[in-house]
Amino acid sequence: MKSVLLGLLLGCSCSVLAGNSQYVNPFIGTSNFGATHPGAQYPNALASVSPFNVAYGGELNKFEKDAAWNSRGYIYENRYLTGYSHLNLSGVGCPEAGVLLLMPTTGELNLDAKSYGSTYSAEQASAGYYRHSLDKYGVTSELTSTLRTGLSRFTFPAGQSHLLLNLGLGLTNESGGSLKIVSDQEIEGSRMIGTFCYHPEDVRPVYFVARFSKAATQTGAFKQMPQYHKVEADWMQYNHSIKPYPGYRQEMSGDEIGAWFSFDTKANEQIDVKLGISFVSIANARANLDAEQPGFDFDKTRQQAVKAWDQLLDKVQVKGSSENKTLLYTALYHSLIHPNIIQDVNGDYPLMGQSGVGNSGGKNRYSVYSLWDTNRNVHPLLSLLYPELQSEMVQSAVAMANESGWLPKWELYGMETQVMVGDPGTVMIADSYLRGIRDFDTEAAYKAMRRAAEQPKDNLLRPENLDYLKLGYVPVDDEGPYDGSVSTSLEYYLADFNLSQFASALGKTKDADRYRQRAQNYRLLFDKDTGMLRPKQRSGEWHNPYNPEQGRNFEPTPGYIEGNAWNYRFYVPHDTPGLIQLLGGDQAFLTQLDATFSTGNFDMANEPDITYPYLYHFVPGQSWRSSARVQQQITQHFGNKPDGLPGNDDTGTMSAWLAFSMLGLYPVSPGLMDYALVQPSFDEVTIQLSSHYYSGNTLQIKNQLTGPQQPGSQWLWQQQPLGSSFISHQQLVKGGTLSLH
Amino acid sequence: MKSVLLGLLLGCSCSVLAGNSQYVNPFIGTSNFGATHPGAQYPNALASVSPFNVAYGGELNKFEKDAAWNSRGYIYENRYLTGYSHLNLSGVGCPEAGVLLLMPTTGELNLDAKSYGSTYSAEQASAGYYRHSLDKYGVTSELTSTLRTGLSRFTFPAGQSHLLLNLGLGLTNESGGSLKIVSDQEIEGSRMIGTFCYHPEDVRPVYFVARFSKAATQTGAFKQMPQYHKVEADWMQYNHSIKPYPGYRQEMSGDEIGAWFSFDTKANEQIDVKLGISFVSIANARANLDAEQPGFDFDKTRQQAVKAWDQLLDKVQVKGSSENKTLLYTALYHSLIHPNIIQDVNGDYPLMGQSGVGNSGGKNRYSVYSLWDTNRNVHPLLSLLYPELQSEMVQSAVAMANESGWLPKWELYGMETQVMVGDPGTVMIADSYLRGIRDFDTEAAYKAMRRAAEQPKDNLLRPENLDYLKLGYVPVDDEGPYDGSVSTSLEYYLADFNLSQFASALGKTKDADRYRQRAQNYRLLFDKDTGMLRPKQRSGEWHNPYNPEQGRNFEPTPGYIEGNAWNYRFYVPHDTPGLIQLLGGDQAFLTQLDATFSTGNFDMANEPDITYPYLYHFVPGQSWRSSARVQQQITQHFGNKPDGLPGNDDTGTMSAWLAFSMLGLYPVSPGLMDYALVQPSFDEVTIQLSSHYYSGNTLQIKNQLTGPQQPGSQWLWQQQPLGSSFISHQQLVKGGTLSLH
Repeated sequence: MKSVLLGLLLGCSCSVLAGNSQYVNPFIGTSNFGATHPGAQYPNALASVSPFNVAYGGELNKFEKDAAWNSRGYIYENRYLTGYSHLNLSGVGCPEAGVLLLMPTTGELNLDAKSYGSTYSAEQASAGYYRHSLDKYGVTSELTSTLRTGLSRFTFPAGQSHLLLNLGLGLTNESGGSLKIVSDQEIEGSRMIGTFCYHPEDVRPVYFVARFSKAATQTGAFKQMPQYHKVEADWMQYNHSIKPYPGYRQEMSGDEIGAWFSFDTKANEQIDVKLGISFVSIANARANLDAEQPGFDFDKTRQQAVKAWDQLLDKVQVKGSSENKTLLYTALYHSLIHPNIIQDVNGDYPLMGQSGVGNSGGKNRYSVYSLWDTNRNVHPLLSLLYPELQSEMVQSAVAMANESGWLPKWELYGMETQVMVGDPGTVMIADSYLRGIRDFDTEAAYKAMRRAAEQPKDNLLRPENLDYLKLGYVPVDDEGPYDGSVSTSLEYYLADFNLSQFASALGKTKDADRYRQRAQNYRLLFDKDTGMLRPKQRSGEWHNPYNPEQGRNFEPTPGYIEGNAWNYRFYVPHDTPGLIQLLGGDQAFLTQLDATFSTGNFDMANEPDITYPYLYHFVPGQSWRSSARVQQQITQHFGNKPDGLPGNDDTGTMSAWLAFSMLGLYPVSPGLMDYALVQPSFDEVTIQLSSHYYSGNTLQIKNQLTGPQQPGSQWLWQQQPLGSSFISHQQLVKGGTLSLH
Repeated sequence: MKSVLLGLLLGCSCSVLAGNSQYVNPFIGTSNFGATHPGAQYPNALASVSPFNVAYGGELNKFEKDAAWNSRGYIYENRYLTGYSHLNLSGVGCPEAGVLLLMPTTGELNLDAKSYGSTYSAEQASAGYYRHSLDKYGVTSELTSTLRTGLSRFTFPAGQSHLLLNLGLGLTNESGGSLKIVSDQEIEGSRMIGTFCYHPEDVRPVYFVARFSKAATQTGAFKQMPQYHKVEADWMQYNHSIKPYPGYRQEMSGDEIGAWFSFDTKANEQIDVKLGISFVSIANARANLDAEQPGFDFDKTRQQAVKAWDQLLDKVQVKGSSENKTLLYTALYHSLIHPNIIQDVNGDYPLMGQSGVGNSGGKNRYSVYSLWDTNRNVHPLLSLLYPELQSEMVQSAVAMANESGWLPKWELYGMETQVMVGDPGTVMIADSYLRGIRDFDTEAAYKAMRRAAEQPKDNLLRPENLDYLKLGYVPVDDEGPYDGSVSTSLEYYLADFNLSQFASALGKTKDADRYRQRAQNYRLLFDKDTGMLRPKQRSGEWHNPYNPEQGRNFEPTPGYIEGNAWNYRFYVPHDTPGLIQLLGGDQAFLTQLDATFSTGNFDMANEPDITYPYLYHFVPGQSWRSSARVQQQITQHFGNKPDGLPGNDDTGTMSAWLAFSMLGLYPVSPGLMDYALVQPSFDEVTIQLSSHYYSGNTLQIKNQLTGPQQPGSQWLWQQQPLGSSFISHQQLVKGGTLSLH
């Protein structure tokens, strides 16, 4: 039975888990396509160590990585483990990373992952720690990690034991690697990753150095040999099979290579393996390893990870059920994985969109920005709770623009993968600025935003800008199956609105006006007849035939990406009141909003509509219904269980939705500072505000209701009636108490 | 029409080809499985650049590399070229090297060697130079090289031109490589080679740096992608096809990768590519390139290669036909390719049999010792003509023993491949010492020789030594199909004889006696009934059934490797007189020797019997028949044409046979200092002797006969009757004139 690790079960000092990290259940999201991983994870870390159970295994693995579009390196239902991966993404929608697979085995050396894998038992995971036992080998594996390294502790039975490092197997669709066994205790090399979301051009190597706590009695490299034919097939001893190179100590490269280290172990002998990574060089991977793992102190390393999580999670204290604490703190945990740092201990990082190396000085350089997802709530959540982190994330994004000419959209390890649509870097930065995070080069940011907004052709972020500038919308005429002319237009409007807000804050009033007007062009796509934001042709004619239901379940449909017309019909977050007017006023809007839920056209698992449960707030007297809708979604889609996320976590976006919702507030739109207030999941919430960014010390949110929120309940701010179900970010961060009565 | 390049055809200064290198025809041996290459070759060089025409091409290529056991990167009959390889072996019997393939193309970029190859015209080659034109592209390619680098000059038509570097394609059966495009003009990386003669364990990377004389307008990497199945097959844009990575500047690794550099060229624009290699590191490859190719001076580089060849070949001056000069100097040329230096310009070289790096100081470190072949005549030839080279080859072999514990047998780039049988390192070194090359660590050499001679088990060089020490021969009982118990025993006897001679010279008389007696044990294998050296069982019984003819054409036969009983029946070169007595005396011997030739059981293309044409010398009054037999073999098997070698050159062994034979003398056995004298192919031969190793200045050999040698002709030495048809090495190297009357 898998379970959240409690201090009592651990047999270690309970002080390890004294903070809120004790409530984290890393298994949440490891089923139902949540795509989180249960492995050892340090906050916003480059490296992590996680069990990999999506290759081979026959019936043991319900979901095989190559049998489907599978973005998960670990799936709760699967049973056949083939190693522990050291570069892992959390909550992404495409196969990537899941490489540098370390596997302990015993007995006769077997180099074939098809058969050296094992089922496992006694699986446990907590923040910064993972363990289980391998049934086939009687080996207990424990994993922990730091920012740039993983540390694995294997407890072997007596006999012949092996540690394999497989550079062929992996979740990524890119292949190729190189390695060199440096000594009986060390190996170095690289592994290609990339082709993210099947985009062929985004590839690069991740470098590594691994060190073993014990000298191996034998080492070797191995490689999957190609298929030889004719005479050569008779002669090649290893034809289309795995060739071992015992004792090999030169450099080895190829598509599917690996290495083994063999040991004579006594019963219960422990061997530790630490592995450091870098996106710059092997030398930097070694420096990272030396700096973060000077010895082989598993317990200390684990304690450091727990401490790092506690420092973050303890900023939010709640009174409530243990179950709800687990949901909240796991949600925060999942929101604190990406973006992650990418710079090495010496500050080196891969320059954005080019081959060189930059240096971040004393600051963190962040990477893995899934901004179409995260601009909506992850970054606002970080801005509220962890503005120090958000500041460095903004600075990193601006640095990327300085390096490549463009802000990030879906940035992955220094590569702009161009996945999804819109211009969300502008949104993320403008929103952060408006929330009070202003210690970045605003002019550089503004310049990059304007380039994306104005450059008609060869626009990396807004490839449809030529039409958009001319027509005020992206026409449906020549869109591809995944372009989504309406979706794209709506994202551009939101970006333009945020750019307008940012321009206004910077005193650029003329620009502010221009972009505010552009952001209103959503009206061009509003079709009075259907009440939908509808795909339109270049000619001005509506796209026909038109079925607003088409597009559920991710099938392509003209106008919309990852959704249908219903999912997008209220997606003008920067001007919900304006849209309500277009839709016929409050009652008409309420009818349509209710219909969205009742007809199954609301999708909790995808981003465009996840604010819809809060839209009742925009009709006077209806905000209590937001609480009900939000609670309904929490109950239905979230839980303390592997399938406790509605779907792909989208690098923390589902989790951030849950965290905001359970805390009782939700940002109505990037670029707008209002939070919609709903009944919190806790009796009391206390948020320690950043003394650097905000004037308040703490923010308290109290739920004084004994049951679900009803019509007529009201919010007090500093014990005085708020007179609204919204509160601004600026007001909140002055600190104080918000209570629901 | 292919032709030897003459100065007149070149349009370059005729002084380039003033020396004897002008007679070299690099096409000799490029057909009839000679396995020589026609490419640009510097004497005893690590690198060379040669056309590669054994991949793909359909009907255009008569012999495809993967359709057979093919050790050739270039075959004269083939027509479809897929590049120029920068690491090439000359005259070996297994597929190896033939990697780092550079290919010029024009027009639309094509990365698939299956279709980017081209036929070619106007093929020309001379020492240090190769050229032809590519029919498909209108590109003229010219190649030259230095010790560690190749330089290629491509003359392009106007338009879009490309230079591809393919790290996947190659002659070797090992795969895998890595690369990094460093700039618009430079690329670095490595390519795995090995699995020589299908021995799986001998592999390593060769490192390279290539530089282009012009900056590319576009660069990119490419990789053969694996086969994806199911859903992923729908999504992977490059599924089981070649994926281009335009602009890619990170490290790339994989089984089949490469890179391209594209240029806008004017009509007749020349672009040079220089490529340096190293077996130590990329840094050393770059240092080699910088030191040996500071600029892009093709003509100067070529002139330096010609000069280096002339310095060696001009030591032997002859008067005779141009045709015979071509045969002689090409034979010397082929004997001066391997062993080749392996140390980098800074002296670094890969340690023998281990992963470290040694430094050779100011000396050359040699590699590629095919000693089963070359101990017989290549090293005696080098000892006579180029003792400075032979001395460093001996020193390198002794250093290998110091590093690995064993002298080389078939050493390839620091790896002992253990190909073939016997203990030929002992033979090569002892013979050199006896010839007067003594400036090496004789005690270290002796220690290594004794280890091979005495260690009963786990003996790398003499794996059959346990039985051999006990029985005096290697029993046939448990030999594998390629062990050859008789062949192995005969090689051990020859090694023991050489060790005896060496011990004697070092004053170790007791050892000398022991090994001299062991060398006489060939008598244990002499079967009076058949007159053959016959496989014997451990029990002392002869092996049955027994067919002395079996084993022609390389099919496995008990007792013999690469030959049958006939091929081996006189293979006791250190005691031919003793064998003659066993065979029944002079007349019986003559009958059997004649029968060997008349029954087709003499094989000019394989080593064990190549001294047999000279064995008439051992019967008084019959030495004139050696001249006839030798001349018969030259006429029948050698010539100024691509099929002008009897078969595989065996790193110069066939060529050394020809060179000795044409000069009129042949060493009767390693360890014995007599040369058998035959009628030279020239009116006059003048050899400039080494002033360092030998007391004489020059040695002249004159043929004063007007027709073929007849009974009654005699040799004069310093104008006095020699009274023998043998002359000792010691006598010869005092200098003087030997003439046949």
